[in-house]
Amino acid sequence: MSTLPNNLKKISLFLERLPGIGEKTANRLAFYFLRLPEEDLKDFSESISTLKEKTKFCKNCFNLTEDSLCEICLDSKRDHSIITVVETVLDLLSFETGNIYDGVYHVLQGKIDPLNHVGPDDIKINELFKRIKAAGEVKEIILATSPDMEGEATAMFIKNKLSELTDSRIKALKITRLAYGLPIGANLEYADYMTLKKAIEGRNKF
Amino acid sequence: MSTLPNNLKKISLFLERLPGIGEKTANRLAFYFLRLPEEDLKDFSESISTLKEKTKFCKNCFNLTEDSLCEICLDSKRDHSIITVVETVLDLLSFETGNIYDGVYHVLQGKIDPLNHVGPDDIKINELFKRIKAAGEVKEIILATSPDMEGEATAMFIKNKLSELTDSRIKALKITRLAYGLPIGANLEYADYMTLKKAIEGRNKF
Repeated sequence: MSTLPNNLKKISLFLERLPGIGEKTANRLAFYFLRLPEEDLKDFSESISTLKEKTKFCKNCFNLTEDSLCEICLDSKRDHSIITVVETVLDLLSFETGNIYDGVYHVLQGKIDPLNHVGPDDIKINELFKRIKAAGEVKEIILATSPDMEGEATAMFIKNKLSELTDSRIKALKITRLAYGLPIGANLEYADYMTLKKAIEGRNKF
Repeated sequence: MSTLPNNLKKISLFLERLPGIGEKTANRLAFYFLRLPEEDLKDFSESISTLKEKTKFCKNCFNLTEDSLCEICLDSKRDHSIITVVETVLDLLSFETGNIYDGVYHVLQGKIDPLNHVGPDDIKINELFKRIKAAGEVKEIILATSPDMEGEATAMFIKNKLSELTDSRIKALKITRLAYGLPIGANLEYADYMTLKKAIEGRNKF
């Protein structure tokens, strides 16, 4: 490493801090940068240097945006009466890539995780309740937190809190959870037993 | 993807062009950038934008450098009478990480590859000959091109050319090639037969 030119070394060390990138990969990527057109590097450099000041959270759903509201919240063609609650913006993106959903989202920015000292007030749960109360039109909340212990706890917490709220409009609210089961294309042989258990419990008439 | 803020999308698309990085990983990395300190991003951005103008090739050995000669060529503690010929700067780095070699290098910037229209004049072979003739002190050339067809051809070409040169000093030059055999820690069961063949041919008294 001592023989890399200064700038290249800095880039390599920066890349090495990113998740999933070790020293060898970081070097390889840094060298690849050298082969890219000057113009593209300047563009990339510009985006990086203004990234944090330009990127904000949507005031309504906490998706990322460069304005005060995100593209999804501003889109009048989407169904604003269905809110899917996800943990992160990356989860939101997974739904969006497939073009399978036309409701809106609420990004919690995490999940309840007592072992890591993350409580309900540390994520955007209260903001979700406020939003539901303020908007007159919400018909369904789809709880799409991850199918692990913390994700389950978060979903359960939200469900219970919503049931406690006495407002008659909120009582009429449909609360759903994503289906569990075998992923499409999966091989039964390699499925874990928890997934199989859920797949049996949730079996449908065929 | 349509819902990512502009700057974040640009960064993600740039990262997606790098080798071994797909759309999901690019997104994940771009999000990770958001969590890094502003200052580090500015530093990184600065390094990227000046990378190409600052990084040059060493005039002597074609390693990368920010000056006219690289750290290795400038290092008087190293043995300048032994030159290891490698294909790329990454190969050079592999030698350097282990602190196993204290001679100098010559980076060919490629290998002879007729199928891809790369001939001897397209890589830094002539520069190697000039360098050997100019420097009075060279005693050994270690050919460390890769053990594949093109790497072999390149090593063979250099060896033949050096033997053709009539200068008596060059005649006395020792030309060696890296040893072939089983890599340390390897399992015989998974070794390919070409490697095994080389390991048998090159067997040593024990």
